[in-house]
Amino acid sequence: MTTPLFNRVAFIGIGLIGSSLARVIKRDGLAGAVVCATRTEKTAKTALDLGIVDAAGTDAAAAVAGADLVVLCAPVGATAAIAAAIGPHLKTGAIVTDVGSVKEPVIAAIASHLPEGVHLVPGHPIAGTEHSGPEAGFAELFRNHWCILTPEPGTDTDAVAKVTRLWQAAGMTVECMDAHHHDRVLAITSHLPHLIAFAIVGTATGMEDDTKREVIKFCAGGFRDFTRIAASDPVMWRDIFITNKDAVLDILGRFNDDLTQLQDAIKSGDGQTLEDWFQSAREIRRGVVELRQDFIDKKPNGD
Amino acid sequence: MTTPLFNRVAFIGIGLIGSSLARVIKRDGLAGAVVCATRTEKTAKTALDLGIVDAAGTDAAAAVAGADLVVLCAPVGATAAIAAAIGPHLKTGAIVTDVGSVKEPVIAAIASHLPEGVHLVPGHPIAGTEHSGPEAGFAELFRNHWCILTPEPGTDTDAVAKVTRLWQAAGMTVECMDAHHHDRVLAITSHLPHLIAFAIVGTATGMEDDTKREVIKFCAGGFRDFTRIAASDPVMWRDIFITNKDAVLDILGRFNDDLTQLQDAIKSGDGQTLEDWFQSAREIRRGVVELRQDFIDKKPNGD
Repeated sequence: MTTPLFNRVAFIGIGLIGSSLARVIKRDGLAGAVVCATRTEKTAKTALDLGIVDAAGTDAAAAVAGADLVVLCAPVGATAAIAAAIGPHLKTGAIVTDVGSVKEPVIAAIASHLPEGVHLVPGHPIAGTEHSGPEAGFAELFRNHWCILTPEPGTDTDAVAKVTRLWQAAGMTVECMDAHHHDRVLAITSHLPHLIAFAIVGTATGMEDDTKREVIKFCAGGFRDFTRIAASDPVMWRDIFITNKDAVLDILGRFNDDLTQLQDAIKSGDGQTLEDWFQSAREIRRGVVELRQDFIDKKPNGD
Repeated sequence: MTTPLFNRVAFIGIGLIGSSLARVIKRDGLAGAVVCATRTEKTAKTALDLGIVDAAGTDAAAAVAGADLVVLCAPVGATAAIAAAIGPHLKTGAIVTDVGSVKEPVIAAIASHLPEGVHLVPGHPIAGTEHSGPEAGFAELFRNHWCILTPEPGTDTDAVAKVTRLWQAAGMTVECMDAHHHDRVLAITSHLPHLIAFAIVGTATGMEDDTKREVIKFCAGGFRDFTRIAASDPVMWRDIFITNKDAVLDILGRFNDDLTQLQDAIKSGDGQTLEDWFQSAREIRRGVVELRQDFIDKKPNGD
């Protein structure tokens, strides 16, 4: 039996990520009580029926009353409104964290609403599936993945340590990073790949009917992977692109330049440029595979 | 014991696909003898050592002598030279097939070199991994995938039936299609996704050093999938893009238009356009998943 890390944990929003973390907290007895506030009555009822929270409703202010940990799990576009609603009801010493894929703008949206004595420890567990909603969650979702925390310098170290222990209990390796840097790294590892996947699936949709039918039927490796990525939650991704606009547009500009180079090489039949480029891409993959192996080797539960 | 479909099968080139098919032929006793000709002595020796061929060398003309099935498994850019070299040595009644990812230009490169009485049945088994070379092959590679054959109208039906039975033995579902149409469908399901993956991995390579290191380290779902796709054989892909230039450039143009629309929506903060677009992409994914399920349900060995 683990000693509870928290007396009362309040989730605001409880989709794939929130419900998976709630399952971890229940499994390991990490909190005396877990409550949640959701946008709709229906989701609140689902969370209760799943047995992953002790109480659920649609009133965020009521949910955070008395909570020593508040986890914001709504789409990042809703963060400012939620922070404004819960700010006055947070107890002194409470920790506020989140799970958003964008950090700098989210911190800006939250910080001004938090009273003195409340600790903000923004977080981003890098894990997910293409499914969404509380039914899609499972406690093992986070295992062997990274969680990045982006507390401002000077944040209470006990608060950071507690959030770290929570994600470690979920099986994650936790690392702190500057919020601005996080948004830039994720723009290329996650946001741009998703944008491209959404775009190419749209391109397929626009083909003549007989081609479209066969594109779906003979869906080869590459395209199938893209459709999986493009099946991710539309509202969550809308908010990510709008919120991380600057970093995404910068990376997208670089990508467009690179794609134009490849396009020109194809047009002019310049096989050498293509081959050299593809060879370098293969090297990068080796780097990813080796680092991943190191990472797994270091984990007690590596899988 | 299956009755052999062929007396003597000659592979020209024996990488991932060729060596996997040779394993199927050996496993099921589909040929009296299997030989191969490769570009280098080293690969010929590897194929022999693996026990997947009975004889191996670097002389393509010698390899096809007496063969009733010739399978071209070299990168598509080498097809014309190979066809010119083997043409005069093919026996009457022999079947020539290939495994190239591009069909119309490959047919044009082969057809003029084939003597009267030799049957051309071009093929494309849609299966693969990011690994290459004869050691990377395995007999189960093809199972539950599609194989598309693109014979010209009027091709000998017995020859088409024999190639069909060969791929069915490998576990594939075989369908005939017009070569031009094939190249268009594959441009979007396979060639464009690969080009994009090569481009984005190149974009990551061009980042400042500290960002690049963390891009590899925190490699999230989307980007990791892209690096896997981008690890595919550089020479094979160079040839595909050069050979299927027209279809690839047309599809790439449409993709660029779509990506520009998404870019404009992000720039102007138009969340509704993004959300609608992402919602449509999700529907397409449902189509892919359902069709795939139908396909697997119909197979005796569905996995």
